[in-house]
Amino acid sequence: MTITSHASDAMVAIPFWLEMFAVVAASISGVLVAREHKLDLVGAVALAVVCGLGGGLLRDMTLQVGNVYILNQPMALPLSIATAAIIYIFPAIVDKPEKLIPLLDIISVGIYAATGADKALVYGFAPAVCIMMGFFTAVGGGMLRDGFMGVVPGIFQRTNFYAIAAIAGSTSYVCLVMSGIMSNVAALIVCVVVTMGLRWLSLRFDIKSPTEEDIARFLHRKK
Amino acid sequence: MTITSHASDAMVAIPFWLEMFAVVAASISGVLVAREHKLDLVGAVALAVVCGLGGGLLRDMTLQVGNVYILNQPMALPLSIATAAIIYIFPAIVDKPEKLIPLLDIISVGIYAATGADKALVYGFAPAVCIMMGFFTAVGGGMLRDGFMGVVPGIFQRTNFYAIAAIAGSTSYVCLVMSGIMSNVAALIVCVVVTMGLRWLSLRFDIKSPTEEDIARFLHRKK
Amino acid sequence: MTITSHASDAMVAIPFWLEMFAVVAASISGVLVAREHKLDLVGAVALAVVCGLGGGLLRDMTLQVGNVYILNQPMALPLSIATAAIIYIFPAIVDKPEKLIPLLDIISVGIYAATGADKALVYGFAPAVCIMMGFFTAVGGGMLRDGFMGVVPGIFQRTNFYAIAAIAGSTSYVCLVMSGIMSNVAALIVCVVVTMGLRWLSLRFDIKSPTEEDIARFLHRKK
Repeated sequence: MTITSHASDAMVAIPFWLEMFAVVAASISGVLVAREHKLDLVGAVALAVVCGLGGGLLRDMTLQVGNVYILNQPMALPLSIATAAIIYIFPAIVDKPEKLIPLLDIISVGIYAATGADKALVYGFAPAVCIMMGFFTAVGGGMLRDGFMGVVPGIFQRTNFYAIAAIAGSTSYVCLVMSGIMSNVAALIVCVVVTMGLRWLSLRFDIKSPTEEDIARFLHRKK
Repeated sequence: MTITSHASDAMVAIPFWLEMFAVVAASISGVLVAREHKLDLVGAVALAVVCGLGGGLLRDMTLQVGNVYILNQPMALPLSIATAAIIYIFPAIVDKPEKLIPLLDIISVGIYAATGADKALVYGFAPAVCIMMGFFTAVGGGMLRDGFMGVVPGIFQRTNFYAIAAIAGSTSYVCLVMSGIMSNVAALIVCVVVTMGLRWLSLRFDIKSPTEEDIARFLHRKK
Repeated sequence: MTITSHASDAMVAIPFWLEMFAVVAASISGVLVAREHKLDLVGAVALAVVCGLGGGLLRDMTLQVGNVYILNQPMALPLSIATAAIIYIFPAIVDKPEKLIPLLDIISVGIYAATGADKALVYGFAPAVCIMMGFFTAVGGGMLRDGFMGVVPGIFQRTNFYAIAAIAGSTSYVCLVMSGIMSNVAALIVCVVVTMGLRWLSLRFDIKSPTEEDIARFLHRKK
C-alpha cells in the first residue's frame, strides 16, 4: 500500500503546547547529560537537539508522508536550542540534576509515545505500525544520544522497564483513541501515566526484563 | 530526476515467503549475537529487529518512494519479534550458535542483496543505483547492529570478503534481471549462490581485501 | 505545511563542478582518515563514500522532496569511489596527509554548507530550516564517519570552531541569496571564505567554544 492521502496539520490532535513541553523536557535532559559528559556549549546544544527532536526525525524519515516535524514546526528547533543554552549557561536553575534527568526523560518518553503514535494514526497507518512509531519516537532521541556519546543505548542494556514502558504507553494510546472512548488529550494523559507508572513500579520493586538465566531458571522450575 | 511513478506492490517480483525466510534468518542471527553480548529479552528482540529489518528501512529511507517495508508489510515486524522471542526463550532449538551466526548472516545478506536491488529496479532507478541499494539493504542491518553494540562495523574492519560478496551478489542479480535471460527468482538464487560462494571461498583460502602494505608490496614487486 | 511543489534539478543554482569538487575533497579526507585507522581497501572506499555523500544523504532523508542526490546524480558515487581507490592505492599522490585532512575537510564543509542550504532554498523552505540543512549537510558526513570509527563525533567534543564555522557559513549563504545582492556562486564563495576563515582564526588564536567553567568564571567576574 502506498500512502496517497496527505493529512493536514490541523488533524494532528495533540495540543501544540504539550508537544513543546516534551521538547523542552527532553532538551533539558539532553543538556544535563551533556554536562555530565563535560561537553562544551556547542556540543551541549547539539545533544539537546538530538534528544528533543531526534526521535521525531527518525519517525518522519520512516513514515515518509512529507510532513517533517523539524521542517514544518517553526518553534521546535529554536525552543530546543534556547532551552539548552539557558540551562547550560545558568545551571543553578536546575536543582539536583542527577534526579531530574531520569524524570524529565521518562516524561518526554511518555508524551512522545503518544504524539508519535498519533501522527501515524492521523495518516491512516495500521494499529501495529502506530504502536511501533510511538515507540520509535519515544526512544529514538535517547538512542541517538547514547550512540553519539559512544555508549550502548539503554534499550540494549539490562535495565528496569524503559522500552516496555514506552511500548505499553504507545499501545494504550492507540487502543484508547481507536476505541473512541476518550479524547486524544485524555488518551495522551493515560499514555504518560502508564509509561511513568510502569517505569516507577519497575524501579520501586527492582523489576527488570528477563535474562537468559532468569528464563532458564523459570523453565527449569516448572518441570 | 524526481521519481513520479509509484510502482504497486504487485510488481515486486520476489516471492513473499523468500523475504520472510530472510527476515527469520537475520532475526535469528541477531538474537544469537544479542545472547553473546548478554542482552536481556527486550534488548535481544530489539537487536533482532534491527538485523532483520534495519537494512530494508535504510533502503526505503533512501529511495523515498513512499513504500516503506516495515510499514506496509504487516507480517515482517511480528515475525521478526516472534522469531527472536522464541529463540531467546528456547535456546536449545539452535545447535552450535557460533557456527550458525555467520551462516544465517550470509544467507540473509544474499537474499537482501537481491530484494534490495529488486525494489530499486521495480521503481525504475539506474542500474548502478540498484546495485548500491542491494548492497545497502544487505549490509545495513549488520552495520546498525554493530553500531548499537559499540563495535566498529565489519565492513570497516579487515575481514574476508563480506562487502565484496554482497556487491558481487547484487551486481549479478541486476545484470541477470536486466538482461532478461532468467526469472527474478532464478536470478535471486544466483545472487545468493554468488554471495555465499565468494564468502566461503574467501574463508576457505583466507583471501582478504588488500591493505596498504599488500598494495605497496604488489606495486614494488612489479617495478 | 506539506511540501507540494517539486522543484526541478535545473533550479539548483550551484554549478555541477563545484559539487563534484566537494565530493572529491571530502572523499580524499575520508580515505586519509581510513588509512590512519588502518582500514583495508574496501573499508577505506566505504568510509570515503560516507564522508563524501553521507551529509547529503542525511539532508535528503530529512527534506523528503523525492530528489535524493546519490540516486539522481549519476557521477557522484562513482567519482567518490574512484577518488578513494586511487588515493588508497597510490598514497604518494598526497603529500603530508596529517596537514591535508583538516584542510580538505573544512573546504568540503564550506561548500556543503552552501549546497545544503541551497537545496532547501530551492524547495521553498523557511530560512531557519535552510540554515539548519546547510549545517546538517556540512557536518553530517564527518559525524557518520566518526560514529562508524567508534569515535565521539567532533561536534560533541571540545574543539576550535567547527560547528560554529559551518553554521556561520550556512547563515551567510542564506542571507546573501535571499537578499538578492549577489549570485549563488558568489554567495557560495563567501560561505566558503567565512567557514574557512572562522576555522582558521579559531585555530590561529586558539579560540574554543566555551565550557561550563569558562561561563561560570565569566559570570562571576561580572558581579
